[in-house]
Amino acid sequence: MTTYAAPLKDVFFSLYDVNNYDEHYKGYELTKDLVTAIVEQAAKFSERELFPLNASGDAEGVRLVDGEVKVPGGFKQAFQRYIDGGWPTLSQPLEFGGQGLPHSVATIVTEFWQSANQAWSMYPFLGEGACETLLAYGGSKLKSTFLPNLVSGKWTGTMCLTEPQAGSDLGLLRTKAVPIGGDSDKYSITGSKIFISSGDHDISENIIHLVLARLPNSPAGSRGISLFIVPKFKVSEDGGIAERNSVVCGSIEHKMGLNGSATCQMNFDNAEGYLIGPVNKGLSCMFTFINKSRLGTAVQGQAQTEGAYQMSVNYAQDRLQGRCSGSGEVVDPIVNHPDVKRMLLTQRAFSEGGRTLTHYCAKLVDCGSSSDINVSNKSKTRLSLLIPIAKGCLTEWGFEAADLGIQIFGGHGYIRESGIEQRLRDVRVSRLYEGTTGIQAQDFIMRKVVADGGVALDEYINEVMSFLSANDGVDGFSECRDKLKACVSDWQNVSHDLIAIVDNANSIYEEVAFDYLMYSGYVVLAYQWAQICVASLYYLNHKDCRDREYYMDKLETKTFFFHRILPRSLANLACINAVIEGNAIVKRN
Amino acid sequence: MTTYAAPLKDVFFSLYDVNNYDEHYKGYELTKDLVTAIVEQAAKFSERELFPLNASGDAEGVRLVDGEVKVPGGFKQAFQRYIDGGWPTLSQPLEFGGQGLPHSVATIVTEFWQSANQAWSMYPFLGEGACETLLAYGGSKLKSTFLPNLVSGKWTGTMCLTEPQAGSDLGLLRTKAVPIGGDSDKYSITGSKIFISSGDHDISENIIHLVLARLPNSPAGSRGISLFIVPKFKVSEDGGIAERNSVVCGSIEHKMGLNGSATCQMNFDNAEGYLIGPVNKGLSCMFTFINKSRLGTAVQGQAQTEGAYQMSVNYAQDRLQGRCSGSGEVVDPIVNHPDVKRMLLTQRAFSEGGRTLTHYCAKLVDCGSSSDINVSNKSKTRLSLLIPIAKGCLTEWGFEAADLGIQIFGGHGYIRESGIEQRLRDVRVSRLYEGTTGIQAQDFIMRKVVADGGVALDEYINEVMSFLSANDGVDGFSECRDKLKACVSDWQNVSHDLIAIVDNANSIYEEVAFDYLMYSGYVVLAYQWAQICVASLYYLNHKDCRDREYYMDKLETKTFFFHRILPRSLANLACINAVIEGNAIVKRN
Repeated sequence: MTTYAAPLKDVFFSLYDVNNYDEHYKGYELTKDLVTAIVEQAAKFSERELFPLNASGDAEGVRLVDGEVKVPGGFKQAFQRYIDGGWPTLSQPLEFGGQGLPHSVATIVTEFWQSANQAWSMYPFLGEGACETLLAYGGSKLKSTFLPNLVSGKWTGTMCLTEPQAGSDLGLLRTKAVPIGGDSDKYSITGSKIFISSGDHDISENIIHLVLARLPNSPAGSRGISLFIVPKFKVSEDGGIAERNSVVCGSIEHKMGLNGSATCQMNFDNAEGYLIGPVNKGLSCMFTFINKSRLGTAVQGQAQTEGAYQMSVNYAQDRLQGRCSGSGEVVDPIVNHPDVKRMLLTQRAFSEGGRTLTHYCAKLVDCGSSSDINVSNKSKTRLSLLIPIAKGCLTEWGFEAADLGIQIFGGHGYIRESGIEQRLRDVRVSRLYEGTTGIQAQDFIMRKVVADGGVALDEYINEVMSFLSANDGVDGFSECRDKLKACVSDWQNVSHDLIAIVDNANSIYEEVAFDYLMYSGYVVLAYQWAQICVASLYYLNHKDCRDREYYMDKLETKTFFFHRILPRSLANLACINAVIEGNAIVKRN
Repeated sequence: MTTYAAPLKDVFFSLYDVNNYDEHYKGYELTKDLVTAIVEQAAKFSERELFPLNASGDAEGVRLVDGEVKVPGGFKQAFQRYIDGGWPTLSQPLEFGGQGLPHSVATIVTEFWQSANQAWSMYPFLGEGACETLLAYGGSKLKSTFLPNLVSGKWTGTMCLTEPQAGSDLGLLRTKAVPIGGDSDKYSITGSKIFISSGDHDISENIIHLVLARLPNSPAGSRGISLFIVPKFKVSEDGGIAERNSVVCGSIEHKMGLNGSATCQMNFDNAEGYLIGPVNKGLSCMFTFINKSRLGTAVQGQAQTEGAYQMSVNYAQDRLQGRCSGSGEVVDPIVNHPDVKRMLLTQRAFSEGGRTLTHYCAKLVDCGSSSDINVSNKSKTRLSLLIPIAKGCLTEWGFEAADLGIQIFGGHGYIRESGIEQRLRDVRVSRLYEGTTGIQAQDFIMRKVVADGGVALDEYINEVMSFLSANDGVDGFSECRDKLKACVSDWQNVSHDLIAIVDNANSIYEEVAFDYLMYSGYVVLAYQWAQICVASLYYLNHKDCRDREYYMDKLETKTFFFHRILPRSLANLACINAVIEGNAIVKRN
């Protein structure tokens, strides 16, 4: 029987000891007690309500019955309890029934939903995007019509972007929007969208679709796309459900994983929709919250890493096979075998380091809404820099962690009953949606590094260097410090080599993009582990530390990371340099 | 609609231009025309009979109906045509109805079966092991009873090793064998075996199980295990089917992939069995042919790489998305995007380089049966050295290639209909069975490198160096030569550092085993690509070369391998060195 236990201690360690959330939340008048209570309640909810539906949801999947999607058994009831617990409202504004907490609170607990049941978590996940868009671009009528029920979770949302011929390249989309009669806000939407998560289901009484479509006479390509709200059921004057809109689920996809999540082809046939945001600015409206949604996907990767680690370490402690050197037993648990330990430590290094990164990014999201324009701009710039790394690398590592989990289970890992192969199948999609890893890689090198001549990157690197100086004399930190300093310096050098390249066509950037993203990810993760190291040493270097084993474990994983994972960056760096040497005319200053 | 085309040109290039099979087969009086005819017929069979059942077999899976396993639709008919075509008999001895061809012929065509339908291929695959064991250890009665029908393919075989508590650690197995009455050859076998591929099915009229079990009063652990033959149906005096033996399939596993292959729990309840090989020597009998069966699994990895590459490149040529630098089109096929090209070239580098390695290993299998004891010993030693690399690395790379395939397909790759995610799910098991990658890694470092003090490794490295000297002046070879020379030299140095370690407990070896295996794999693959390079240059450096594009493509992939894949070995090497520095007391000479 597999289990999941929300890793409360590690979460609090990351929040308070690594990321200084204590100080951060003072600005929001949010007490540690309240945060602790929320996180602990979320832990229970994920363990008791969501995790027990994870395997059954995978086995049962969604079904399309007479044009309506039925979710797996228990999903609807869990969703009702999710609403009853007020979970959808956490970070939503008070004005529309939300609790008005900073966005980071929602991000922190999202880890638990995603570890416990990634497929189920897709249903609430998409509603948040609809809320964000309405809050930012909706007129007062649209807001009052849709927001209260979206905030409460009574209604859910979707994002309808992809079409068969238009995936990463949304400029190719063909769905049409035509104004209806004299009402300038109403449009008739016609077209087919694919890969629509939660496009139809029986979890909520209404589904609010955000739909990208083209108005008549709009320019071709991405500059001619507008954004519309299309509800499954129209809304009556009194705010209740009125007649069915002409948007239907044509089919559901049979996928590698995430079987409990409905992935729909949605057909809009003169469906009634309402323009939101400026004409022809649909893409930028849809992508306003891209950092938040990509952070949510990054959390999926980290959460599946944690889930895979927990299953793997539990199995490895129980499974007796082979003898370890010097153990004297007839048979030892495989957790004691060095190669199994290598795989477990890899999972841990990704999960714990990844968590401190998502918590840091979540803080940046909060600060991005600061009324202090300086703070807000700095935070937004930093978040934009780190999001492609977080989304790209944490989902890649989540997949690797699940894959290592199968390997730790051996042949048993290949059997569905083990549950570990489901994690691999589920997390696999996180590397594809919200922009593939390749898209993250291009975004990172071109828009986040080259476009500003490396300014944002250098600011980040300066912060790492300041951190290193500030902790220079910490007892036990020297190896970590030296290794981080060396790799950050290499990172800065190669980044400026890349920036200096004359590559109007961008083809060299595209060629190195993946290696540069992963390389940067390993360096950023090294900084996370350096911070974990310093936070742990703070306790260990105080004689009265009551929990030495916990912090010693952190140091062991830190050492493993620097010895056995960070060296991968050498391979990425060599690949980047091979491309630079092979192709580029470098302008060195 | 996905397709598969057996890559005949590449197979012949590997056989004749890289691996000198022309010369090799002269010793077997096997003409090029005959080999060509066999390989071309196998190509057709795999394309027409096996590939069309690949997706349907996955979707349908196997079923257990009233205690009997039913295979997916079409599998039985394809198997009959496989028998009719004489394919099971290729490399079997003439005496029992075989065609007496060298083993390599069977290995070469196996790639096509595995690319076309890995699940189906499991049914004939296991029969070969039963033949091998009977030929080596069977008395004349066992041989005449079982071999003719096993050779023809009329009967199939299994290998019953694993038990719930005994996987990689077979010493823990509990299945019992008790002599029956006065007949010293007959035993009553009782116990449960799990993960038995092709354990039951309706493809063949009889199934011959090879079963590891413990005789009364045998020593504990791996030295107390004997090998038995247990047929599903007993065989009458005239060689026909007699009554049902008491071995039944208790359940079938629901797996991540390979759904068309029956993975059974087999219950032996006083089943009648016949001892084969010496008492208590069952493990060594079962593992006599381990190099052959691991080579077969290595071919699975390479074959799935090829299959994934073909699907990916076809998709990438058709899929229009995004604009490439300077193309002037509104939208370009993704094959032109540098990051997609990176993934396609990675697949190609693994498939084509992997194939030349499996072909080389297949030649060594042939030579291992040479009547010249010197040739035979040298070949066996070389094969033993390379098999853990071939099995371990080619299956790891096969998984990576399938995974890259999904990434190339984007969101479409996550949909079952695309067919690419099936390759990932199917090939995943190849890293687990026949010894996990971790087991291959331990076998390699401890038994193949450290145990003989590096003698076999040094002989191999000397051969690489001779190859480099012999081709030193070849026009266009210098970059490849220098890079290979450098990495082989590093490999030799770190190998001898490892050999010199004082590590009676082997724990350091276990700690570095995985990195050392993968590191060695990249170096061996570099040698393969150097050979492909020289073979291609041979044609390109002749003015009248009529197929320049084909060989230029090889050179492009070669360059990609040395620039973008081989650098991974730097990461492995750094990890190994970190462990050595962190732990070992090195005795340097």
